[in-house]
Amino acid sequence: MSTDVSTLDLEEAGAVLAAESARFASFGWMRGTSGNLSVVLSRDPLRLAVTASGHDKGELTPADVVLVDERGDAVSGGRPSAEAALHARVAALTGAGAVVHVHTVASVALGRRSPGGIVLSDLEMLKGVGVPAHGVEVTLPVIANSQDMTVLGDRLEAARDVRMPAVVVAGHGLYVWGDSPRQARHHTEVVEWLLELELTGTGR
Amino acid sequence: MSTDVSTLDLEEAGAVLAAESARFASFGWMRGTSGNLSVVLSRDPLRLAVTASGHDKGELTPADVVLVDERGDAVSGGRPSAEAALHARVAALTGAGAVVHVHTVASVALGRRSPGGIVLSDLEMLKGVGVPAHGVEVTLPVIANSQDMTVLGDRLEAARDVRMPAVVVAGHGLYVWGDSPRQARHHTEVVEWLLELELTGTGR
Amino acid sequence: MSTDVSTLDLEEAGAVLAAESARFASFGWMRGTSGNLSVVLSRDPLRLAVTASGHDKGELTPADVVLVDERGDAVSGGRPSAEAALHARVAALTGAGAVVHVHTVASVALGRRSPGGIVLSDLEMLKGVGVPAHGVEVTLPVIANSQDMTVLGDRLEAARDVRMPAVVVAGHGLYVWGDSPRQARHHTEVVEWLLELELTGTGR
Amino acid sequence: MSTDVSTLDLEEAGAVLAAESARFASFGWMRGTSGNLSVVLSRDPLRLAVTASGHDKGELTPADVVLVDERGDAVSGGRPSAEAALHARVAALTGAGAVVHVHTVASVALGRRSPGGIVLSDLEMLKGVGVPAHGVEVTLPVIANSQDMTVLGDRLEAARDVRMPAVVVAGHGLYVWGDSPRQARHHTEVVEWLLELELTGTGR
Repeated sequence: MSTDVSTLDLEEAGAVLAAESARFASFGWMRGTSGNLSVVLSRDPLRLAVTASGHDKGELTPADVVLVDERGDAVSGGRPSAEAALHARVAALTGAGAVVHVHTVASVALGRRSPGGIVLSDLEMLKGVGVPAHGVEVTLPVIANSQDMTVLGDRLEAARDVRMPAVVVAGHGLYVWGDSPRQARHHTEVVEWLLELELTGTGR
Repeated sequence: MSTDVSTLDLEEAGAVLAAESARFASFGWMRGTSGNLSVVLSRDPLRLAVTASGHDKGELTPADVVLVDERGDAVSGGRPSAEAALHARVAALTGAGAVVHVHTVASVALGRRSPGGIVLSDLEMLKGVGVPAHGVEVTLPVIANSQDMTVLGDRLEAARDVRMPAVVVAGHGLYVWGDSPRQARHHTEVVEWLLELELTGTGR
Repeated sequence: MSTDVSTLDLEEAGAVLAAESARFASFGWMRGTSGNLSVVLSRDPLRLAVTASGHDKGELTPADVVLVDERGDAVSGGRPSAEAALHARVAALTGAGAVVHVHTVASVALGRRSPGGIVLSDLEMLKGVGVPAHGVEVTLPVIANSQDMTVLGDRLEAARDVRMPAVVVAGHGLYVWGDSPRQARHHTEVVEWLLELELTGTGR
Repeated sequence: MSTDVSTLDLEEAGAVLAAESARFASFGWMRGTSGNLSVVLSRDPLRLAVTASGHDKGELTPADVVLVDERGDAVSGGRPSAEAALHARVAALTGAGAVVHVHTVASVALGRRSPGGIVLSDLEMLKGVGVPAHGVEVTLPVIANSQDMTVLGDRLEAARDVRMPAVVVAGHGLYVWGDSPRQARHHTEVVEWLLELELTGTGR
């Protein structure tokens, strides 16, 4: 299965997002109907396929997808999550081809413990998000939550570390991005692994 | 699969409850033969389909279901759990269309740590049970356990926070409800997620 | 599938034990090739089907079973584990129809923390092993490990609480029994749940 | 399925490694694209089949494998991980027929807590790696991480306890070996179980 997003139509994108969602749901990272995923279908104008709101993320079908514009407004399909606007903003800001938003216990727990950001260094796993394994300190930013996606987007833009394709939203969850749905998945798995490690409390 | 309960007959309800039970069992929330699920089939008179007692909750068939009345007594089918009476009471009290009772480690652990109730606020996940994500403090009540379902029902009625579709029974587990089996599932996943978060000990 | 053991032949018993083993292996309770399961096929003389030694417990076939006598010696089939002798002793001592031996992290961790035995009371989950949910204190015994099955059996016999169908072997794992493979499974799930609860450190 | 490696051709080896990888990935031990597995196909000259770099370890096909020599350089197939050189060195040094490298949270957490090595004794589970269950103290070595496989190999050679088929690489993960892919799997499961036990903090 290619995840070269530029060649996907909306239903193909829906199939990819449904499969990715089912995977994350099986990890317990999309409990209830939480979280949403997106993939960029065109750059100019910016168009993203975003998972439809209110569904069980382990039971999505290829049709449970909405086409949204650069403001996250629906172009076709059902009702997007309000958070679609943040997906579009992340895609525009970072050039990402896919965005993952999940609610993991570890991300919210670490956001509480380290509200100023989670400092990471000297971990081989950092290579999984493109950061050297030795001698480089990066910060996984923690930003305050908001229901206003413009405010949340401003905070993300101000806080992000360009070396890290992820941000923790305090009391909320995790935004992670990558070139493709598969790379975004791998980045998500890596960031969550790093958070689970920090949650053991064995760091300095 | 529609979970519009008003149109389900008893065997269809049994099939829905068997699928929901298998899901919760796969999470480890129904170890042994613990827990039980119900769905309201009629309001007047109140009739609920409740999972049969004593079975492995990962192996239920559509026939492993009992029709009970407003007191939890069997109208047809096999032997209901004594707890069927509490399911019926929750349905009558709250107007819920489905009730989930599971034994999770986190709910009993938190009931020990916070016997006066578990205070929650400023968490996006609260939206999954209909509570605002900001500035509202709700309490997930913890009530003392009893083998007398009238006593337990009285405690639940006295303690419940109308904004929270769930109660922790100390030393026992979790009761959660919703409009339909699917909504009750989502509420259960959300409440358990909140409990697992609090169990990390990272809160204030 | 009936688990009325008295009617099973050796291969049927092997099929039941393979299925039960695969279940426990999926929980991570039989890592490596650890643990073994048995079912009583006759009482007089005592004959048990025991899982064969050295196999991956997630990959057993119905043929991976050995018929042993009251001393745990092979009557037919392959090589039994040395621990088959303890299975036979538990079956003779308690009248159990099935014995489960698993290596769970929680049982070894709790055996370290509470070497004198794990005291349990006022937990609804205790009903899953036949103990009242209120006002009765039982002890899950912890016995010292040994490679001599006679010594280990003597310790088990001396330490066991007749109200609890389980014993923790320190630095080793858990022995649990029941009337049938299914009841032994449920007892195992219940005891492990209780140990995981105690491991949270929220008790008195 | 035989895992007698000497009779496997490269594609058969790829099929075995894909199945083993999918298993470890399902445990969460190969998040992102982390980790790699190998099996020795010939001793003289030393040739190993190693999983290809950059793939999702839950989605490997039999073709996602590279044949490497004693230096870890590709003889045929795609691009090997740089770590293939360490696999080859472990195989040459220990005589192992298969090597597993996984990134587990427990191994990195314990490497932080016990940078001088993890001392283990009096645990039945030690028998799963060939160490007596009583009275023998072994050390699971923790070595500093490096991107230079010669340096890392020197550290592994200097630090290893010949009684333990495993080494923790600090800030990185776990190397484990065995006679065959299946034995290496069992050794990995046993070592990870021991690490998860130590992570509970219940030891002396």
